[in-house]
Amino acid sequence: MTTPIATAPRSQVTRKDVARYAGVSTAVVSYVVNGGPKKVAPATEAKVQDAIRILGYRPNAAARALKLGSSETLGLVIPDNSNPFFALLAHAVEDAAAARGYALLLTNSDGNLAKERQHVRNLAARQVDGVVLASVLFEPDLADLEAAEIPSVLLNHSGEAPGFNSVGVDLAAGARMAVEHLIGHGHQNIALAMGTNTANAFDLREQGWLQALTDAGLPEGPVVRGEFTRAGGYAAGRRLLASANRPTAIFASSDMQAIGILRAIHEAGLSVPGDITLASFDGSAEAEYSWPALTTVEQPVRDMAEAAVSALVGSTRGQQPEHRIFPTTLRIRQSCGCP
Amino acid sequence: MTTPIATAPRSQVTRKDVARYAGVSTAVVSYVVNGGPKKVAPATEAKVQDAIRILGYRPNAAARALKLGSSETLGLVIPDNSNPFFALLAHAVEDAAAARGYALLLTNSDGNLAKERQHVRNLAARQVDGVVLASVLFEPDLADLEAAEIPSVLLNHSGEAPGFNSVGVDLAAGARMAVEHLIGHGHQNIALAMGTNTANAFDLREQGWLQALTDAGLPEGPVVRGEFTRAGGYAAGRRLLASANRPTAIFASSDMQAIGILRAIHEAGLSVPGDITLASFDGSAEAEYSWPALTTVEQPVRDMAEAAVSALVGSTRGQQPEHRIFPTTLRIRQSCGCP
Repeated sequence: MTTPIATAPRSQVTRKDVARYAGVSTAVVSYVVNGGPKKVAPATEAKVQDAIRILGYRPNAAARALKLGSSETLGLVIPDNSNPFFALLAHAVEDAAAARGYALLLTNSDGNLAKERQHVRNLAARQVDGVVLASVLFEPDLADLEAAEIPSVLLNHSGEAPGFNSVGVDLAAGARMAVEHLIGHGHQNIALAMGTNTANAFDLREQGWLQALTDAGLPEGPVVRGEFTRAGGYAAGRRLLASANRPTAIFASSDMQAIGILRAIHEAGLSVPGDITLASFDGSAEAEYSWPALTTVEQPVRDMAEAAVSALVGSTRGQQPEHRIFPTTLRIRQSCGCP
Repeated sequence: MTTPIATAPRSQVTRKDVARYAGVSTAVVSYVVNGGPKKVAPATEAKVQDAIRILGYRPNAAARALKLGSSETLGLVIPDNSNPFFALLAHAVEDAAAARGYALLLTNSDGNLAKERQHVRNLAARQVDGVVLASVLFEPDLADLEAAEIPSVLLNHSGEAPGFNSVGVDLAAGARMAVEHLIGHGHQNIALAMGTNTANAFDLREQGWLQALTDAGLPEGPVVRGEFTRAGGYAAGRRLLASANRPTAIFASSDMQAIGILRAIHEAGLSVPGDITLASFDGSAEAEYSWPALTTVEQPVRDMAEAAVSALVGSTRGQQPEHRIFPTTLRIRQSCGCP
């Protein structure tokens, strides 16, 4: 062995050297270096860390990946992690991946299909072990994912995509539950503020809203379409308030839109729930701290992230593609008129 | 060349084969596969993508990393990307990295120092080309980063850390600006809702608040310390409202705390800015859509992310460690009493 040169990687020092110096097995060195999968006692970990520092050991991830045929990395494509719902989802996916020893490459598509496709190709080029795609599209273009031949799962996806794993919630049932709750408060003119995605495809939340009204023998309230954003909700709120057929209740297809609608209502000098009641969809922390707090359909983000990651790296990996649909929970707060 | 077997990686097909089939140079194949650094005309890109599909080419990232001695990957450690400020920061860092052809490994430390250290070690083990650390600590424990011998930069860090690149904002000047604005509205009893970090170190926002009061010849208003969260702000707000020396204005050290304080004020049946005025720090989207909208000290998140990433992979890489401090901007909205 030659003397390590300060500027060169000290790849001459091996895991075996570290194990010998620390007086542990090479497996224990691996656990410390990789942060798992097994736990190491703090005193043992300190010994290994000391040995790593003193010997100047640097594990060679590229060599390891080449040998394993795996980078132990997953890629995540989300529309925008500045949207608190997607931030929560990204955090949950990171936790689920880390629990299995996988790191997570994060990419934001900014609601842009070209960027989404570019991210998928880049992740494929980096040979991630799997891609979690929360697409901006209701029916994403899956040709690139197919061509990449990488295990993949569609997250936040309620329709069935033949040949692909997918994880989503029952959008129609969740929306119906929220609208039925508003009907239970005596409302007869219930508007829909619907988010539109790039594909402008029919969204099941709209179906749920319609079903609840039909079942109750109520007419369709006004419908406004716009972006799944605070600004989109604000514009929708202003239009609904200016409408000749002004609703007494609004169902918004996302918390972000509801936050914008709240601003429009406040600005008009009206009160929620006194003058207009409101319910939304997602269950983000922002909905809990808005004024008033939003009654919202909560998505089980942790369960969804677990299901997505386990489809890629768990025991179910490689089985028949599975389409998992989770139920939602109605979080009742003040915006609906409940005390 | 042997016939590719469907289940084995088709590493027999090389970039050269793809280039020949598509009738382009191997450099162009690289640009398409890596999404840059040069742009490729759509028609050419389509030809290359066709060749990749037909030949079943899969670039070998691990072999490439081994050859280059670089994974073209950066690691980001943030306290919690469910906090909208850190979500914005993470998004900006991802964009800055992507613009340079680097992917981003995202890790959340959940405000937990042990987890933060574990993430730093894991990123080092994965041989990322650099680590962007937004620590939960005011004075982070840098021994692991030092031991890892990986280029690193402390982001969201206002103190100077000898030997390390750091990027932050002038916290004291920003806070002073906000408190001076409240003083300009005639307030004489201005409280401080201060976030506390794990190290409980002195925060320069507190110094800015104090300086503004001292300069104006005003006494120190009440101080409440708690978490940098909505719930922490809510608890702080309740305490301040119950105080015998109830303030007429509050400066909160983060938007999240201000959101919680707003809830406490609303619940007490008081109005903002009628009964109590409020200003905060960060400049997140949530502050723009709260009711009333928050006057807040905005951090230049995109500039900070650019500076952090360019310290790791730009032309300044490897130079003397640099400590960059950005100025902030006061975004005046309604919570301070402005019309």
